[in-house]
Amino acid sequence: MNELLQLLLVVAAILVLSKLAGALSQRIGQPSVFGELLMGLILGPTVLNFLDWPVFSHREEITVVLSNLAELGVILLMFLAGLETDLAAMKKVGLAALIGALGGVALPFFGGLGVALPFGYDFREAVFIGTVLTATSVSITAQTLIELKALRSKEGTTILGAAVIDDVMGIIVLSLVIALYGTGSGAAAGAGSSPLMTLGVIALRIVVFFVVFALVLGRFAKPVLEWARKRLQTAEVVGAMTLALVFIYAWAAEYIGGVAAITGSYLLGVLIGQTDIKHQIESKMQTIAYSLLVPIFFLNIGLHANGRELLGPNFEVTMWIVLVAILAKIIGAGLGVMVTGFKPMESLRVGIGMVSRGEVALIVSSIGLRSGVIGPEVFSIMVIMTLISTLVTPILLRLVFPKPKEVGAAA
Amino acid sequence: MNELLQLLLVVAAILVLSKLAGALSQRIGQPSVFGELLMGLILGPTVLNFLDWPVFSHREEITVVLSNLAELGVILLMFLAGLETDLAAMKKVGLAALIGALGGVALPFFGGLGVALPFGYDFREAVFIGTVLTATSVSITAQTLIELKALRSKEGTTILGAAVIDDVMGIIVLSLVIALYGTGSGAAAGAGSSPLMTLGVIALRIVVFFVVFALVLGRFAKPVLEWARKRLQTAEVVGAMTLALVFIYAWAAEYIGGVAAITGSYLLGVLIGQTDIKHQIESKMQTIAYSLLVPIFFLNIGLHANGRELLGPNFEVTMWIVLVAILAKIIGAGLGVMVTGFKPMESLRVGIGMVSRGEVALIVSSIGLRSGVIGPEVFSIMVIMTLISTLVTPILLRLVFPKPKEVGAAA
Repeated sequence: MNELLQLLLVVAAILVLSKLAGALSQRIGQPSVFGELLMGLILGPTVLNFLDWPVFSHREEITVVLSNLAELGVILLMFLAGLETDLAAMKKVGLAALIGALGGVALPFFGGLGVALPFGYDFREAVFIGTVLTATSVSITAQTLIELKALRSKEGTTILGAAVIDDVMGIIVLSLVIALYGTGSGAAAGAGSSPLMTLGVIALRIVVFFVVFALVLGRFAKPVLEWARKRLQTAEVVGAMTLALVFIYAWAAEYIGGVAAITGSYLLGVLIGQTDIKHQIESKMQTIAYSLLVPIFFLNIGLHANGRELLGPNFEVTMWIVLVAILAKIIGAGLGVMVTGFKPMESLRVGIGMVSRGEVALIVSSIGLRSGVIGPEVFSIMVIMTLISTLVTPILLRLVFPKPKEVGAAA
Repeated sequence: MNELLQLLLVVAAILVLSKLAGALSQRIGQPSVFGELLMGLILGPTVLNFLDWPVFSHREEITVVLSNLAELGVILLMFLAGLETDLAAMKKVGLAALIGALGGVALPFFGGLGVALPFGYDFREAVFIGTVLTATSVSITAQTLIELKALRSKEGTTILGAAVIDDVMGIIVLSLVIALYGTGSGAAAGAGSSPLMTLGVIALRIVVFFVVFALVLGRFAKPVLEWARKRLQTAEVVGAMTLALVFIYAWAAEYIGGVAAITGSYLLGVLIGQTDIKHQIESKMQTIAYSLLVPIFFLNIGLHANGRELLGPNFEVTMWIVLVAILAKIIGAGLGVMVTGFKPMESLRVGIGMVSRGEVALIVSSIGLRSGVIGPEVFSIMVIMTLISTLVTPILLRLVFPKPKEVGAAA
């Protein structure tokens, strides 16, 4: 079978199985994203390892295609979350998001440090473990909240705001750690240079992206789409142009700003969400996202994680790190927003919404591996931590948020 | 820049540039597909060769991703053409399609043979050149006719029917040629075995696919989609399930039936097009196709073809082969349908609609290259022939078909 035929089978299987798993998950009262993540785990190396079956001789190319489609999927998913964001409500919870993000970065950092040192890791590794634990990736949370119809709630808005701030703070912490301890090739901005210099460069890049690109050029997003719609007489021009803008903003966020690509697409979503062009593009983007790219993203997480590693020699330290990763985020972010006046239940919801580490923690871990700060053993532990924190998030969120029908569009 | 960032830039560029080129093409009175093909040629090795720019260090992975997305794109494009097909009208023109396809296979085959022999190619190579010239790929024609609102016209219906028959006849001719002359590894079914045996296997595979898969299982397509829509409560379940079915039919056509993947997706489109579920899925599939996958398909053709090779030492023979490829198809298919009672103008339209060779000729050529029947020199000539026949098709169709507004839904 040639490459294309194998890909057709794999993509068809992913689409059918993820929708079945998602629907089944809903039927037992869980968000569909939980079922899709679990299905990925079953298909991946943890159980079936189906891409390693002899029939898939073009495994390598298929993996490249799936991984890239998955990345496009999560970028589009966060754009959709941005479209749903209520900017006015976001401004109201701005301070809470800031303090929540601070707590959600500080406590996991010191928590990771505090678990790793007693287990005999050296200071450098312990610091890096703490750094990975600071990461938050809210794509799973965003999807769960969309399903629970709570993305525009006060807590949902706070979580998304805190996630953007967390991303910025995370990249600062990571770059400092790499600058202080990194030995390998310059994986992150400023590796090897002085911490002060590093901080300056990071700050400059972030400012350039946020101020110039996202906000100033952001004003052009709507006129460009309007112009394309009116002047370019060709099929699906608005859909294609929107996708192009989403990809360009995601690129700029990571390449210019040094933050995550999904932060860029999320911000573009927020900007476009304030305009009336939103309604023309939302359903189109949902179709492209949920019919093809997002199922591949959810399934692909399981295809790249090996749950069996959990049962290896590092079981005890892994369990401790997972526990601290989850609890430190809930308590750190939760206490942070509680200080600004959130009620205990609201604070718990925000804290749980920040638990999922997702691809950001994986990216940070691979930077650590590449730059020599951590070894393969710690890397595996970080992958397990990411996997478990990602899997429990939809379940925990489902527990603390009211059922969809009971929630109004709050804020 | 990492792989993802490079991919984001490339895809964004492809989407923006193809829509601009398509719109510009329409403004000068040409189908937008012509502009998109031309833009691909400009971006590809013929002019800019932009994927070879130093910035794209992950060129290889990007090429794999783009090629596979392009394949998914053309599969989806032919599904949409199938949805548009009027089966009742197709039955009326069935005989014309059969005779047209026969003429469109016979004349190019002997034409190719007749040009290649005087230029000193040996008989084996000449036979293979003739074989490549028999191929028809109507994806470009289908797109052009959709734009000209003539896909459901008598001529459009005949072209699509003839294309399916042409695909079946083409695969028979190819397999016989490989069985008779092939020396390499078994690239096509039955390489090395006796011609009669080969014919039997091919016939069996085609019958199994057409009768069992496309027609019998085709009846399940609608109930499956209806069931998914009603019973699976999760986002975009109909879109995802439709895509999965399209990919499975495309896979089955090539793997089980031995015909082109696009023939499979086209047939599924025809089957679903007869049901009322068509209206629920058509606009979704159009969004996925024309916002993302189809622009990549059109651009990707130019990215893989080097027009500069035209000016090499084989200029004269290349020009002759191109000329024969175009004229033999027009005359062969045209006369074929004229025999069954088509008027001269109608016959000319059908003949021109069959000119485009597209990916089928490229696939056949690479099989020939792999199995040792032709060398790299002939392969290059075949690529140029495919490129030119593909580029002229939208222009010629535009000349012979009335302007969109003047055409009713004929047949």
